[in-house]
Amino acid sequence: MESTAYTKRLLTYRLSLSHLKEVGLTDVFSYLIAGETGISAALVRKDLAQLKVKGKRRGGYEIDVILDAINNYFGDNTINRVVLAGMGNIGRAIVNYKNFENRRIKIVAAFDLDPAKQRKKYDVPVYPMEKCPDIVDKYRVNVAVIAVPAFSAQTVCDRLIQCGIRGIMNFAPVNLKVPDHVYISNVRLCDELQQVIYHSTKTNQ
Amino acid sequence: MESTAYTKRLLTYRLSLSHLKEVGLTDVFSYLIAGETGISAALVRKDLAQLKVKGKRRGGYEIDVILDAINNYFGDNTINRVVLAGMGNIGRAIVNYKNFENRRIKIVAAFDLDPAKQRKKYDVPVYPMEKCPDIVDKYRVNVAVIAVPAFSAQTVCDRLIQCGIRGIMNFAPVNLKVPDHVYISNVRLCDELQQVIYHSTKTNQ
Repeated sequence: MESTAYTKRLLTYRLSLSHLKEVGLTDVFSYLIAGETGISAALVRKDLAQLKVKGKRRGGYEIDVILDAINNYFGDNTINRVVLAGMGNIGRAIVNYKNFENRRIKIVAAFDLDPAKQRKKYDVPVYPMEKCPDIVDKYRVNVAVIAVPAFSAQTVCDRLIQCGIRGIMNFAPVNLKVPDHVYISNVRLCDELQQVIYHSTKTNQ
Repeated sequence: MESTAYTKRLLTYRLSLSHLKEVGLTDVFSYLIAGETGISAALVRKDLAQLKVKGKRRGGYEIDVILDAINNYFGDNTINRVVLAGMGNIGRAIVNYKNFENRRIKIVAAFDLDPAKQRKKYDVPVYPMEKCPDIVDKYRVNVAVIAVPAFSAQTVCDRLIQCGIRGIMNFAPVNLKVPDHVYISNVRLCDELQQVIYHSTKTNQ
């Protein structure tokens, strides 16, 4: 498997290239991608070579060719189904987040302890956690977003993994323990913001 | 200024130690912190030495001493005021996010183009963007969260910086350009989730 840093860079390229395409460009040079992303031109060229994207005869690359190659890499021709645990503030924002659609990511179901939330009309059906094995099986999902409070996050995480989940994006402010075969990405909103605060205060002095 | 990696590790230690404290521990050894955080015991000891936290005579550390040192490092005795741009799904989740309070982070005001949102009752007052200079000045804020759509993010970002903002946490899916004196942290929800999907699919094969 390629490194996490490599896949991250591909996502960064895609974001910048989609933007450049929107403003009307069709071709780019590696140094332009470098300027947009902050990644060195040499590394851009290396990554594109690894993606098997060829430059044009006069130099530069076609934006569409790169975008296709990146989309292929991520298997973006299929729809990626995801379940969500926790319909609190963050969970509801995730369900309503329109950008997932453009990436062919679909939240197919959510879980919440609260029966009131199970009855309410959201953009996705909300089930009690007991339904987890059925839903994961029915939709053949292997990725989950955890947006439950810290105190229940590990229990929910263990449960999801038992049901066959192998990839987790975690918003709960805890260090979740997962077996080796499970990939976890922690989105630490507090930590991120605190880092920004810390750095912006220091640069003041 | 210390490295970003170092401040990130301190936040990771704090999270784990707060948890260990909650479950009843008062003292820890570096290898226990290592086991909880996935950071090597040697690096844990180095970081604690840099924080000027001393070990106990019989080995190990007092959890409270470490937590105090980390809180001091982040200046957590003062309240950190932050403004928010964009009261969409993500923005509202940020305003309602309870964990910020524990970290002495306070969202003092939000900005949104939509006059309906300016009239609505949220936990923070919502102003038109034109009020930005006044609000930033009045509350002496230098950190902002950007949660506006991609197409307006750069304009909003430039405006905030003009008003004196020096630290930005950005949720908009664009590579924002900021001057050197501004610290920016990008929270790429789509990219994060796509990485999880990518890795969990690959481990399947």
